[in-house]
Amino acid sequence: MIHDVAHIGHVELLTPKPTESLRFFEEVLGMEVEARQGQSVYLRGWGDYQRYSLKLTESERAGLGHMAMRAWSAEALERRVAAIEATGLGQGWIDGDVGHGPAYRFSDPDGHAFELYFETEKYTPPEHLRPSLKNQPQRYVGRGAAVKRLDHVNVLALEVEANRAFAQERLGFRLYERIELDDGTEAGAWLSLTIAAHELIYVKDALGLQGRLHHVALWVDTREEVLRAADLFLDNGIEIEAAPSKHAIAQGFFLYGFEPGGNRVEVTTGGYFVYDPDPEPTVWTEAERAKGQAWGVKTVESFHTYGT
Amino acid sequence: MIHDVAHIGHVELLTPKPTESLRFFEEVLGMEVEARQGQSVYLRGWGDYQRYSLKLTESERAGLGHMAMRAWSAEALERRVAAIEATGLGQGWIDGDVGHGPAYRFSDPDGHAFELYFETEKYTPPEHLRPSLKNQPQRYVGRGAAVKRLDHVNVLALEVEANRAFAQERLGFRLYERIELDDGTEAGAWLSLTIAAHELIYVKDALGLQGRLHHVALWVDTREEVLRAADLFLDNGIEIEAAPSKHAIAQGFFLYGFEPGGNRVEVTTGGYFVYDPDPEPTVWTEAERAKGQAWGVKTVESFHTYGT
Amino acid sequence: MIHDVAHIGHVELLTPKPTESLRFFEEVLGMEVEARQGQSVYLRGWGDYQRYSLKLTESERAGLGHMAMRAWSAEALERRVAAIEATGLGQGWIDGDVGHGPAYRFSDPDGHAFELYFETEKYTPPEHLRPSLKNQPQRYVGRGAAVKRLDHVNVLALEVEANRAFAQERLGFRLYERIELDDGTEAGAWLSLTIAAHELIYVKDALGLQGRLHHVALWVDTREEVLRAADLFLDNGIEIEAAPSKHAIAQGFFLYGFEPGGNRVEVTTGGYFVYDPDPEPTVWTEAERAKGQAWGVKTVESFHTYGT
Amino acid sequence: MIHDVAHIGHVELLTPKPTESLRFFEEVLGMEVEARQGQSVYLRGWGDYQRYSLKLTESERAGLGHMAMRAWSAEALERRVAAIEATGLGQGWIDGDVGHGPAYRFSDPDGHAFELYFETEKYTPPEHLRPSLKNQPQRYVGRGAAVKRLDHVNVLALEVEANRAFAQERLGFRLYERIELDDGTEAGAWLSLTIAAHELIYVKDALGLQGRLHHVALWVDTREEVLRAADLFLDNGIEIEAAPSKHAIAQGFFLYGFEPGGNRVEVTTGGYFVYDPDPEPTVWTEAERAKGQAWGVKTVESFHTYGT
Repeated sequence: MIHDVAHIGHVELLTPKPTESLRFFEEVLGMEVEARQGQSVYLRGWGDYQRYSLKLTESERAGLGHMAMRAWSAEALERRVAAIEATGLGQGWIDGDVGHGPAYRFSDPDGHAFELYFETEKYTPPEHLRPSLKNQPQRYVGRGAAVKRLDHVNVLALEVEANRAFAQERLGFRLYERIELDDGTEAGAWLSLTIAAHELIYVKDALGLQGRLHHVALWVDTREEVLRAADLFLDNGIEIEAAPSKHAIAQGFFLYGFEPGGNRVEVTTGGYFVYDPDPEPTVWTEAERAKGQAWGVKTVESFHTYGT
Repeated sequence: MIHDVAHIGHVELLTPKPTESLRFFEEVLGMEVEARQGQSVYLRGWGDYQRYSLKLTESERAGLGHMAMRAWSAEALERRVAAIEATGLGQGWIDGDVGHGPAYRFSDPDGHAFELYFETEKYTPPEHLRPSLKNQPQRYVGRGAAVKRLDHVNVLALEVEANRAFAQERLGFRLYERIELDDGTEAGAWLSLTIAAHELIYVKDALGLQGRLHHVALWVDTREEVLRAADLFLDNGIEIEAAPSKHAIAQGFFLYGFEPGGNRVEVTTGGYFVYDPDPEPTVWTEAERAKGQAWGVKTVESFHTYGT
Repeated sequence: MIHDVAHIGHVELLTPKPTESLRFFEEVLGMEVEARQGQSVYLRGWGDYQRYSLKLTESERAGLGHMAMRAWSAEALERRVAAIEATGLGQGWIDGDVGHGPAYRFSDPDGHAFELYFETEKYTPPEHLRPSLKNQPQRYVGRGAAVKRLDHVNVLALEVEANRAFAQERLGFRLYERIELDDGTEAGAWLSLTIAAHELIYVKDALGLQGRLHHVALWVDTREEVLRAADLFLDNGIEIEAAPSKHAIAQGFFLYGFEPGGNRVEVTTGGYFVYDPDPEPTVWTEAERAKGQAWGVKTVESFHTYGT
Repeated sequence: MIHDVAHIGHVELLTPKPTESLRFFEEVLGMEVEARQGQSVYLRGWGDYQRYSLKLTESERAGLGHMAMRAWSAEALERRVAAIEATGLGQGWIDGDVGHGPAYRFSDPDGHAFELYFETEKYTPPEHLRPSLKNQPQRYVGRGAAVKRLDHVNVLALEVEANRAFAQERLGFRLYERIELDDGTEAGAWLSLTIAAHELIYVKDALGLQGRLHHVALWVDTREEVLRAADLFLDNGIEIEAAPSKHAIAQGFFLYGFEPGGNRVEVTTGGYFVYDPDPEPTVWTEAERAKGQAWGVKTVESFHTYGT
């Protein structure tokens, strides 16, 4: 078991509509603006322990800027960098960014930009965001959907298997569930660094493209808050792609919509914990997958094809 | 059965701290300012069908300004006015107020100022508050506790019995539950105009005073929203008098706190419906009352004595 | 305003699979068997104030046996019987049934069997079902979905308008929402005797048949319980027709499935209260109806055609 | 960082009233009996991946029989055994028990009986408990409170610091929160093996005794289920020690009661995740602790003194 990577620290989303996207994350999802730099705004949920978990950057097209993971320690970081360099996918060190220190940049086999860092700034709230409970990073403001923190990232890949193996072998992700088509192709892999049922998901790109993002998921603590988020999407004119329901895979409770820039965003909760240190991954067949979600809701076509 | 009064339309709260009180109702409870006139601000929940349900008026002391009920029709209004006049508690007609037509002013035996009206303005939302569903009066903005509407009013009275009888006989309230002390004194009465378990409550004034308010309750649809409101009270420095729990009487799920002006405010949901047209009122004895709330939570002393 | 009918007291469902149907209502929905007589079993939710709200009767085909409404008083019952007799739809008095006294039998214009009664037996729980709170009819056992009480009945009709008018004019139902097709046809009517958004619903029969039942709805207090019921349906092999979501019309939160006998059953909560004594009914156009449910979920075809 | 112990696998509770205790865990909490052997019954929640998480053993007095933790691997087990042996607290190997292989028995400094094992039997449900979703170990039966799995164990200790250090240094627990009295004494420590906010808690024994249990906590996924469990405790005559509310420490949502044998049992959910690999433990002072729970609920005296 590799225990060198702790969690996904933040995600950079690219948006061609920065003003509208920012309004969505700030007003509809209820995140706080923690910093601004160049064409980027750095946002946080009230439960994020670091300064931010979402970097929103103006760009010509929507998509994933990069995804950054935090190592367990400086030594763990070095070990992982060595392991990545050995694959030839490493790109080298950068000085860091707002809120964190030196980061090693690389890509997964599919070409998504990843970073690994250890040094980070823990969040210190300004006076108006100081919480009452000292084990909570920030005041609960309760604006809009009031998402708590970044939960997971789902990326599309031409070859799921190679990317899944890279995540397991080089980064230490654990595989909890996967989809295997009738011809033996791996069509999806649900990976985690912790007991949470998923943190990184690879799904086969139906259009045969590379480097695309499927969605970024923000966490709320209860299913009621997901239902409430759906009401907020409705009344704020946010396109709902999939109304609240329960996934069969990973059993997460979801709401999917498109932020104004075009990226798919999920509000999520639920799922289950994997305390088992040697779990046998759950394998879903093509037929089982075709049955739709847990309670029989059919997945809309766009969910299988649209990516950014 | 008298079916002449439909429901409590609005409540006027007096506050010596108008700015802080307004901030509480607008930012913490999430109500909208619908109008301002003189020293008053008129506020609404997103589910109120009339223009407002709360009138907040600057005053030297906290307390109930008045409580206004809407009649079923113009004829029903006339019938009730005649019935009230016969008791000698009538005070006469006023021209109306923001959002409603002529109102008949009177007091209950304990001296609380009541009004009865029929003509009203249905709410028409401005563009930025227009809802997506046409059976909803206003957009769900999701700010703070996001209370939906006024639910019930609890007033203290020197003699519960006389006031309860007045509400039943002159206004047509139905009695669903009551407290009877060992000496036979009526110490509380839960009254309703509908299937809702309570809309108007009379509780014996422990200090022997008259005309005092115990609390005004605002409705949310789920218990999760009451729990969430407690987090918002905590992080906004609102004094929580009683943390979320379940009442034995009426089975309402509650959160009690004090708005900055000093009035007790409840965020409430739950309870049960009384579909039975001839229910036997539930009578609680002194001993049963002493057991505390549904799950054994003891009621804090201030709850029995503090009023405005 | 007619205030003579209080609420729907019980519904009789016909089932060709009495054993399996009984198991569904008792084990999956968590109702209690209160009585048995002939080919019928009488069931109740833990919040029903009368002895039962569901009569399950063995029959060759599934469908509605009859629906019985309780009058406000003996006088109110007489007034309504006179009003119904004047339409020629009356059938005469029956002696009563388990748990209630004399009932007047009649049909709506579409031919559904209705009854009206006043005298009833209030529920007295046996020792093992005695509740802790005296304002609750029965112990909360918490078995399966643990439905609380009967909520509403939805029947199909060849001509919605005639039946809706009959319910309003002869029984005193109030119309809160309706669907009007582009050609002016009334395709659905949501009617209520109380502030609840609906108790009786008429929907146009897509197959042009008469006397069919669309569904019977049982109430739970929270959306979480509806979601939980979906898990129970799934694990008990109950066919889910429509997974939990929110209706645009009436805003109820729903789960639809088929009990083993073939009747559609809904587990429901939510909606809104109509305190307004003179509301303008919400009218939904054909185009608005085609948009699906509140959050954009499309209605499955069977929902528009299947009835019993 | 030590990553050798995965999680607490099961807890053995001793009870002088085995029949009543079993009825509580089976009917009120909704656990399943998986095995019986000698004077013990082995019970499981529907989400436990091993055969059971609770061993209930007849005994003269209530209390903790033992607590067993599962290692990450056979090698990890050996490493931990060596580390424990070095402290002199080791007692040696036992052959195993129902559902798991060889276990190393030892005690913490306070004298609680602990075991460490690796080999285990994954749960295989019988036909009537087979779930619909293949990533779920067992059917969701929905009986009573329907607890999902064992969550955490809270034990009393004469010297918190020594036991906390033992858990950290020998077993690899991480310290997330602690209480420090004004005189510098450590009065409580919240420890975890994962991102969950706590799995093992040490609290100072107010009576100066050793080896006592404070409580065992069973998990449900939502706060609604905790509230529902309170209704079930009420209607089943289970003594509620602390009604549902939110802890300040660890932010767990709780319900405490006493099972018939005398052991304190918690139904819990909520809390937060610690993704941070190098968190600074939150330290609560004596004054902060005296403020009560998150929303100001005062802790009942028995909570500080009663143990088994």
